[in-house]
Amino acid sequence: MMKAIRIEEAVSILENNSKKIEETEYVPLKDSIGRILAEAAVSESAQPPFPRSPLDGYAMKAADLEGVSKENPVRLNVVGKIYAGYVYDGVIESGQALRLMTGAPIPDGADTVVRQEDTKEEDGIVEIYVSSKPYKNYCPIGEDYGAGEVLLHKGDVLNAGRAAVLSSLGKTQALVYKKPRISVITTGDEVVMPGDELLPGKIYDSNLTYISLRLSELGFDPVISKHSDDDVEKMADEIRKAAEVSDFIITTGGVSVGEKDIMHDVEKTLEAEHLFWNVNIKPGRPTLAFKYNGVTVLCLSGNPYGAVVNFELLARPVLAKLSGNQSIKIKPRTAALENDFEKTGGKRRFVRGSLNGHKVTVFEQPSGTISTLAGSNCLVEISPENSGLCAGSKVNVYKL
Amino acid sequence: MMKAIRIEEAVSILENNSKKIEETEYVPLKDSIGRILAEAAVSESAQPPFPRSPLDGYAMKAADLEGVSKENPVRLNVVGKIYAGYVYDGVIESGQALRLMTGAPIPDGADTVVRQEDTKEEDGIVEIYVSSKPYKNYCPIGEDYGAGEVLLHKGDVLNAGRAAVLSSLGKTQALVYKKPRISVITTGDEVVMPGDELLPGKIYDSNLTYISLRLSELGFDPVISKHSDDDVEKMADEIRKAAEVSDFIITTGGVSVGEKDIMHDVEKTLEAEHLFWNVNIKPGRPTLAFKYNGVTVLCLSGNPYGAVVNFELLARPVLAKLSGNQSIKIKPRTAALENDFEKTGGKRRFVRGSLNGHKVTVFEQPSGTISTLAGSNCLVEISPENSGLCAGSKVNVYKL
Repeated sequence: MMKAIRIEEAVSILENNSKKIEETEYVPLKDSIGRILAEAAVSESAQPPFPRSPLDGYAMKAADLEGVSKENPVRLNVVGKIYAGYVYDGVIESGQALRLMTGAPIPDGADTVVRQEDTKEEDGIVEIYVSSKPYKNYCPIGEDYGAGEVLLHKGDVLNAGRAAVLSSLGKTQALVYKKPRISVITTGDEVVMPGDELLPGKIYDSNLTYISLRLSELGFDPVISKHSDDDVEKMADEIRKAAEVSDFIITTGGVSVGEKDIMHDVEKTLEAEHLFWNVNIKPGRPTLAFKYNGVTVLCLSGNPYGAVVNFELLARPVLAKLSGNQSIKIKPRTAALENDFEKTGGKRRFVRGSLNGHKVTVFEQPSGTISTLAGSNCLVEISPENSGLCAGSKVNVYKL
Repeated sequence: MMKAIRIEEAVSILENNSKKIEETEYVPLKDSIGRILAEAAVSESAQPPFPRSPLDGYAMKAADLEGVSKENPVRLNVVGKIYAGYVYDGVIESGQALRLMTGAPIPDGADTVVRQEDTKEEDGIVEIYVSSKPYKNYCPIGEDYGAGEVLLHKGDVLNAGRAAVLSSLGKTQALVYKKPRISVITTGDEVVMPGDELLPGKIYDSNLTYISLRLSELGFDPVISKHSDDDVEKMADEIRKAAEVSDFIITTGGVSVGEKDIMHDVEKTLEAEHLFWNVNIKPGRPTLAFKYNGVTVLCLSGNPYGAVVNFELLARPVLAKLSGNQSIKIKPRTAALENDFEKTGGKRRFVRGSLNGHKVTVFEQPSGTISTLAGSNCLVEISPENSGLCAGSKVNVYKL
């Protein structure tokens, strides 16, 4: 078997062979969650576009309220009444007040609002029981943002809050980068799809389901998601077809040194550009990568947990690069082990764990097994230097 | 204005007036992410269902390899060759070996596998250069799980890993609880939908977009998402219609004490059961809740940031209760302030913040403004006891 390269080197090769997708499209705001903004959002006008009342009450000149108190009220003529969404066209003069509701524009001439609880209106006259200051209870034009302000940046990941900002600018759509198109093709004659009969020697699929749904969780419903026979010509053909409609292809299985490890011959048949084979990692060492027709093909181990680990560590950086969403790239944090972990072998290992706050419990399970995936929410890195780790040791944890 | 109740009391009233949805449905695994499992997943048979080879090599009796080394190899008759997915029907006797690939069933009679790198085959004879022990390189039946094991529990939230476990059991679908049906109706004559003309005194919508997309982010695309005029009869009618198809209705606006605060009259018109009005919180104090036709109606403040805060604190616990997914309920964590925060007033406040690791930067912005939503990823709780907080102070943070 060829010498294995470091994970970091594999990631760097994959990133260098992936290009950010620059094509853009408009999507309705309701479908914009998780999409990457392809242009800055700049306000055309100030928000609010008029001085706005923050409460239900009366607008007037603060100067009219000098020395006013419960014992010494002032009486003002009520010149009108407006609700939010409507405009009073006149100008408030000294001695006048306008009845207005929360959100209504404060008219010209008025510079403060007194809340209705501190007033009493009767027969077109309102008694005011408190004094005020200019611009008290007065939301000025542009309190939220001014005209020409950059509110969202190119490259921002859209969420409910950012979509609400776009809506407040009057936009019904967002200009976003097109999503990378990902295909998943699994191999393995021993694998049967659920729904089909399980003959002797066969097992039901887990890789196709895992990788496809993991892509969906990250926001990339795969364009192709299928299983192929262990046949070099058939698999080469699947990759030819997938490369027509994909920006990135992920396969599982057929990457080791056995006779049915067809992906090496598939690579030759396709006359693909070799990127690497073997990454210094356990599980999933014999990961293979090549480039066909401009599309990077990442061939993960068929070993279910190997596929999990290598998807997280190697495929996610590609997805981040293609989509321009760096938050997709998996990043480690530090946690303390809850249990002892007795390491075997001198490889850089990634084991299943359950992270709870700053503590992580590690599961020791063979890499061909998948049931502990149900309870694990992270990968725990075990350095090759460590011959064993005690509870309390600090480890790198990669949250799934 | 009526006395305000505590947030915790409001949550408890809302939870007591919401019922977990017990109806179930089958969904294809590919659509199962985020859904709540309505039955345990129990294995019918062991996984793997046969002893399995973990590598490419030869299966034989370990007893045949006693004392074997590079210098002292043993020669065994190769009785056949199988790939993963196929079965060798014979029994391996002493002096025999079976060539087999990773994932293939280990035949009866054999109790170990030697990797091909430690062998050499010629003319139907394989030379073995290493010794072994019984059950070395031998994945036993049930290594992953045995028959009758509970692999997933009723109530588990499905993700890619859990769906892969279901797939490995041969399932194409998952039995899940039906999703709660949520409706959002916003009010406010001052609000114009993007795409429509912005007349004087009007502003573009942000609440409908925010609440609807926030629901989508949490996994509940709203069944109704619309804006209504500030008209008691019209709004009452919207709620009547929504109650027919919803498990929970969220409205914004019209809850304060002004003349256009129509939701109090809507409540009366509907002869709804009053739950509460006014929560001791800033912003969003005048939150109203009632129950109509068995459906809880939560009426949030129309003030955009008030709607944000109260959605997170009051609506999410209802969504958690209805769906049975407790992870939706917002829970605080502790973080240290990056900046000083000068508090005003004696209310329990929730301000916008940006959480980075264990540190949080707080934005002081009027509650009618929304532009900082673009950069905030959490709510920061400011207790009424604090007259002001210095950088470094520990605060409760609620991640959005």
